[in-house]
Amino acid sequence: MSITIGEYLLARLSEIGIRHVFGVPGDFNLWFLEQTIQSDSLKFIGCCNELNAAYAADGYARLNGISALVTTYGVGELASLAGVAGAYAERVPMVCISGTPPLHAMREGALLHHTMADGNYTNMWNCAREFTVAQARIEPSNARQEIDRVLRTCWIEKRPVYLQLPSDVAGVRTGPITVPLDLAFPRSDPKQFARALSQLSLRLAEASAPAILLDVDADRFGLTPLIESLAEALHLPIAHLAPAKGFVSEAHPLAIGLYRGARSSPEVRSAIENSDCLLCIGTRFTDVATGLFSHTLNAASMIDLYPFSLRTDKEFFNAVGAAELLAALLPGVTRRAPSTAISFVQQAPPPHAESKAQQPMTQVDFWHAMGTFLQAGDVIVSDTGTAGFASVNLALPSGVTYISQSIWGALGYGLPAALGACLAAPARRQLLFVGDGGLQMSVQELSTILWNHLKPIIFLLNNDGYTIERLIYGANSSYNDIRAWRYGQLVSTFNSEERAVVHSVRNHAELQSALQATSDASRAYLIEVFLPRMDAHEPLVRFARRAAEFDFPQILED
Amino acid sequence: MSITIGEYLLARLSEIGIRHVFGVPGDFNLWFLEQTIQSDSLKFIGCCNELNAAYAADGYARLNGISALVTTYGVGELASLAGVAGAYAERVPMVCISGTPPLHAMREGALLHHTMADGNYTNMWNCAREFTVAQARIEPSNARQEIDRVLRTCWIEKRPVYLQLPSDVAGVRTGPITVPLDLAFPRSDPKQFARALSQLSLRLAEASAPAILLDVDADRFGLTPLIESLAEALHLPIAHLAPAKGFVSEAHPLAIGLYRGARSSPEVRSAIENSDCLLCIGTRFTDVATGLFSHTLNAASMIDLYPFSLRTDKEFFNAVGAAELLAALLPGVTRRAPSTAISFVQQAPPPHAESKAQQPMTQVDFWHAMGTFLQAGDVIVSDTGTAGFASVNLALPSGVTYISQSIWGALGYGLPAALGACLAAPARRQLLFVGDGGLQMSVQELSTILWNHLKPIIFLLNNDGYTIERLIYGANSSYNDIRAWRYGQLVSTFNSEERAVVHSVRNHAELQSALQATSDASRAYLIEVFLPRMDAHEPLVRFARRAAEFDFPQILED
Repeated sequence: MSITIGEYLLARLSEIGIRHVFGVPGDFNLWFLEQTIQSDSLKFIGCCNELNAAYAADGYARLNGISALVTTYGVGELASLAGVAGAYAERVPMVCISGTPPLHAMREGALLHHTMADGNYTNMWNCAREFTVAQARIEPSNARQEIDRVLRTCWIEKRPVYLQLPSDVAGVRTGPITVPLDLAFPRSDPKQFARALSQLSLRLAEASAPAILLDVDADRFGLTPLIESLAEALHLPIAHLAPAKGFVSEAHPLAIGLYRGARSSPEVRSAIENSDCLLCIGTRFTDVATGLFSHTLNAASMIDLYPFSLRTDKEFFNAVGAAELLAALLPGVTRRAPSTAISFVQQAPPPHAESKAQQPMTQVDFWHAMGTFLQAGDVIVSDTGTAGFASVNLALPSGVTYISQSIWGALGYGLPAALGACLAAPARRQLLFVGDGGLQMSVQELSTILWNHLKPIIFLLNNDGYTIERLIYGANSSYNDIRAWRYGQLVSTFNSEERAVVHSVRNHAELQSALQATSDASRAYLIEVFLPRMDAHEPLVRFARRAAEFDFPQILED
Repeated sequence: MSITIGEYLLARLSEIGIRHVFGVPGDFNLWFLEQTIQSDSLKFIGCCNELNAAYAADGYARLNGISALVTTYGVGELASLAGVAGAYAERVPMVCISGTPPLHAMREGALLHHTMADGNYTNMWNCAREFTVAQARIEPSNARQEIDRVLRTCWIEKRPVYLQLPSDVAGVRTGPITVPLDLAFPRSDPKQFARALSQLSLRLAEASAPAILLDVDADRFGLTPLIESLAEALHLPIAHLAPAKGFVSEAHPLAIGLYRGARSSPEVRSAIENSDCLLCIGTRFTDVATGLFSHTLNAASMIDLYPFSLRTDKEFFNAVGAAELLAALLPGVTRRAPSTAISFVQQAPPPHAESKAQQPMTQVDFWHAMGTFLQAGDVIVSDTGTAGFASVNLALPSGVTYISQSIWGALGYGLPAALGACLAAPARRQLLFVGDGGLQMSVQELSTILWNHLKPIIFLLNNDGYTIERLIYGANSSYNDIRAWRYGQLVSTFNSEERAVVHSVRNHAELQSALQATSDASRAYLIEVFLPRMDAHEPLVRFARRAAEFDFPQILED
């Protein structure tokens, strides 16, 4: 039975596991949206704007494995671009579909709205190209091949891809789908593979203090179970960079904690920096991950394992698959006796005295309470800012997923990302940590969350402005101020009182009462926590000071 | 006295007439923001997010002549890009300043947050380049020259420009400013100029039915007074394309109305399409401006005047300034006797019966009431959608400025643009027309408007979803639905009851009462007007039908 090109694309999206499509309607994508809602297997989630839709798709992909975003040409896709770039930076696979003007109009350079009205139809593509790993304009002559190529690339590289779907192409008929999408990971080159396996085995066997350091790729490429098995066989300690928080359970006997250069705990720092064979899984030593480049690693002791390449001290292999390599390594390793175990070190556990019920809430008190509030299997979504710098230090019970933009760091990501995360895993309890500045950026998506009957527990950390910026520079400068909203009224303004409960928290007693109330899982919660303006976790205070030195060296001279 | 490079840039912004800088703080721009608020002549207007800040800067520039936008590298600038692209399409000059990481970090390809963490520092530039007419990375060695070059280009070309200001460069000292910025428009080539003048004079003198057709450039390049003088001397009828609404007063005896191809009034259509010498001022015959290319113009009768070029039937001149040419033309023209005058034809004045006080409000009733509510000197800001397609047909009293994105057409532009417009012309009454879908996109900027004590009269046209999309396709499809907010509560949620009055309007009596209340100009007004879901001006209904035919030809075959 023949289907249309739009239906072909939707079938392929469904085939790779997408069940929700995020986006905003616009004239050029309406037909495709109609096809989407006609589909049995996909649901369209309309967002209030396109940047938020991209963030939602990002949050969704982190739990679902991949996501899709539909915007309209020009105005829509460009508005989403910052969210797509974030997904690229954080290695989140997202199929970005731009509903474009009809093919004839683009070929003729027609002067249409949503363009520069100069006949240029390459500018949007040029922008998308910077932050996607494959691009295609779907035409009737190439549709099946290009859709398949681009979706496969998204799947294999775990980064956003870009499809232009002209409005008049979505309805063109094509033959039925006869073969499944080829999602096989590329095979390693046999000679390279054999050499890589031998070098890696030897290095691990000879090392006296081998260790593993995880980054984002471990999760995105499904390597974590293999790494755990390898670690268990060889009794290797596993540390992680901030973006890899929670990939290996913090209760795992070999998990030792967060590595961030000189800002690590002494045990973690020693295990990583003194390792004579440090197996790095896709590590990117960014400023935030390393306490502004305070790491001192010995290049000669590092082995860099990437999804499809490997660098040892001897050689760079450009065609070796990480999963294949780890799987082949396991049976042959000589099991090692347990060495002195390092237990998991929670980074910078803040000193904490017993909270007094009526004392004003502080960051230390709040996060201490969160430590006991967390449950196994929770999903945590955290926005950037004080929320992000504190939540990354939370001790995670088993099976907790932690979602944050540790690299891209866009304020405003959290709330829409929680929309996506809730849809991807509706059965799990979802906690969102977001500051007042971040909430204001993307506030409208709270209505999308509530109207979709999703039930996150939202902790709104109201500290009266951009505290993370105040800590870096301009503590009392007006540009770091934001408007003091009555956040508690948002739920009613969004016409959703029956869908969410609002709490206002100024002290420990109120927090405890709000937390207890959340045991009724039939509603969402918006818990506004008032916190002092300049209060922040000590690691953030230190990071902010170093960031100021890094960004504005002359200020310190004055 | 030496000043810093940041101060140099601020002094130049001030010199070209900028008094407000829009933006959002981020770590890489904090020092420059500090310099901004320390400046005596500039005020920083913090917006809730960067796309809104770009829209605000756009609205500001349309009244102020030019504007400035400050964002932080990566996350901030990319989020604003759709607004910058809109300014490019609509020919709005905007100085976009991205506070970037320190120079050393960019040169070394440091793995920083707000980047792709791959050492690539060209990707943001590549995107900005698509929608700006000049770009520079400000370094201590080139700062003065590059700032001057880029600002001059913005001024001359009336389009956005892009400056990267590294965080560690803003504070570097440079010498005092000794010469003013060169803002002189380029001089015409004398030989070309003489030939162009002669051809244009001759064509006008020989023509039996000359006419003028205006587009955006007439306003942006200050040509309107010259065009009016020329029209008066020769008794030329002046028509305008939609983006040029209000440039020439509709009360001007030679203004004849809106030209939009076959959808024009018969008088306007005849005057333009039957002209044997049609002087076109920067015309771009876009789909929206022409009722989807329904114009039938005779190329041989057209003379295309651009800011610095001219095309006659004989020749293309690449170095002729429009203002210079019009000024030189005037003294030499043979004044013509008045011909049969065409009075200004309001486009498609909707049939309107006397409104009954308690009848539910309709689009026709509402816009009829607006026609009498308008006052000389008002500023109208209109979002896209039903609001835009109707407001462009309003009869404008003298001195009214009409602001809308007639080309780019981004939903959500209106509210933030009104923020900018109010700051640029605080003494003028400001009316905003925005639909519910558009308001939800950028709603947070209402708080910025109110907290800055601005007092627009906001007409929120609540028709329960994306009506313009419903008219094109999917009238009852869920993707065109939006969430039903209680918009009236926004003012209180934004903690601004004392700054704004809310009205809810369901019929003519309530509208009249709300309009009368606005005579107290000490507050802003949010007037929510409930309108039927599928109600729209007939021109929009027709346009939507043609747009569906254009975008989705196969649908009609089914």
